[in-house]
Amino acid sequence: MKFIDKLNAAARNNNSLLCVGLDPDPSQMPPGASLLDFNKQIIEATKDTVCAYKINLAFFEAMGDEGYKTLNLTRQHIPADIPAIADAKRGDIGNTSKAYAKAVFDNLGFDAVTVHPYMGFDSLAPFLDYSNRGVFILCRTSNPGSADFQNLLCLGSEGQMPLYRFVACKAQEWNWHGNIGLVVGATYPEELKEIRKAHPDMPLLIPGIGPQGGDLGLAVMASINHRGEGAIINSSRQIIHASFDADFASKAREAAVNIKDEINRHRCLV
Amino acid sequence: MKFIDKLNAAARNNNSLLCVGLDPDPSQMPPGASLLDFNKQIIEATKDTVCAYKINLAFFEAMGDEGYKTLNLTRQHIPADIPAIADAKRGDIGNTSKAYAKAVFDNLGFDAVTVHPYMGFDSLAPFLDYSNRGVFILCRTSNPGSADFQNLLCLGSEGQMPLYRFVACKAQEWNWHGNIGLVVGATYPEELKEIRKAHPDMPLLIPGIGPQGGDLGLAVMASINHRGEGAIINSSRQIIHASFDADFASKAREAAVNIKDEINRHRCLV
Repeated sequence: MKFIDKLNAAARNNNSLLCVGLDPDPSQMPPGASLLDFNKQIIEATKDTVCAYKINLAFFEAMGDEGYKTLNLTRQHIPADIPAIADAKRGDIGNTSKAYAKAVFDNLGFDAVTVHPYMGFDSLAPFLDYSNRGVFILCRTSNPGSADFQNLLCLGSEGQMPLYRFVACKAQEWNWHGNIGLVVGATYPEELKEIRKAHPDMPLLIPGIGPQGGDLGLAVMASINHRGEGAIINSSRQIIHASFDADFASKAREAAVNIKDEINRHRCLV
Repeated sequence: MKFIDKLNAAARNNNSLLCVGLDPDPSQMPPGASLLDFNKQIIEATKDTVCAYKINLAFFEAMGDEGYKTLNLTRQHIPADIPAIADAKRGDIGNTSKAYAKAVFDNLGFDAVTVHPYMGFDSLAPFLDYSNRGVFILCRTSNPGSADFQNLLCLGSEGQMPLYRFVACKAQEWNWHGNIGLVVGATYPEELKEIRKAHPDMPLLIPGIGPQGGDLGLAVMASINHRGEGAIINSSRQIIHASFDADFASKAREAAVNIKDEINRHRCLV
């Protein structure tokens, strides 16, 4: 099954464009809960409210050997019909990217991955070759420093455009398997709108609401496609760390339902 | 001790600008050798011929839990006076990059890391904050696809330059700890020369000789600084897979000595 079909099926099933980011802070575990326990309970409590889960590999790598095991077991706990996105931000020369693709797709069994565009086509090809998995290319990221290079005006055969628009155009050009998406931050709703207009069919993975300052409503209205789909709105800390006590799972569910509902309200406003 | 001082000390001690890339292919192990064994023997056989080792994390990640352990043990086997570079090509928003920096610097104890510039300053800051560790920013990479974005002509306050030159200028601007280096491929000697001229003091990590097609002599002459130093010439497969038999370690040593000597011959020609 193609990634995009799995994504749309989950989104329709749960009537949700919400992606829960599993970026747990080990120093903020509720009393008595191991990190794996915590993740499992968060997944159990939210699995009917999401279109996808996004796991940030960094937080597990920061824990060494044990972290890698926990990552693997956490991923396995995500229900088979919900896409699991590896937020890995990889990208290297061909034979190295092939090893990274093997790690996230074959070993860890993720449905999609995030990648850096800077090294160009052959650094992405080994990921794209997995035609049923999704590949989200960083385009206009949610952080303040994203302006340093992504907004540079570039001259190409298509005229003058900011770098992130070039990246989006190349992504479109390379999308023969139909498995490419773009990462565009909720913190830049105007750019989101522009990207959606230029690339009407590409799924957009959207971090940056909540603590990073992106406006949820604006982000939703700017990013959904003509069917009111195609946007994956990520929220991490607001959901998974909604409470630091024993009630963390029920509070996470409450937060997830609220964000999902707010997303859906804005889907109807376009 | 600053990374650059450790690097220069090792380079002088061993009279070498050679970096051995530990990118082992598990399917090409000599009969009876485990991956860890293999790495240990390669290190033992080459440790007086190098200025640094570079370990590519992808190949270990591709092996799952066991790979992570082998990575850790391999890194620990590198002598304390030889810099160990994590070729990780990471880069994410601030709190995530902080977790990656913790993983490579605190947990795995690497002396330096390679990073993607695309997300801008705040994605690099958590690495740069380790002021005694080196941070190699991807600039003009050795692969064919590097032209896709890195060569785009960009308009900035400094005038019109290819993107990779902008990246180098920003790297210089952000270098208050003196711990930044650049990754520039041996496959582009003209660009190497340009970068060296514009950034006379920055260490350059140079992949791309051998199978990737970069000319060793041209790369050395284009990249050394006015003291004949500052270049880290990486070679992986040519050395570690010089033989697929039981004599792999002695053959690796032979190959390393040859490349080191050829580098030194060209250092004298400038």
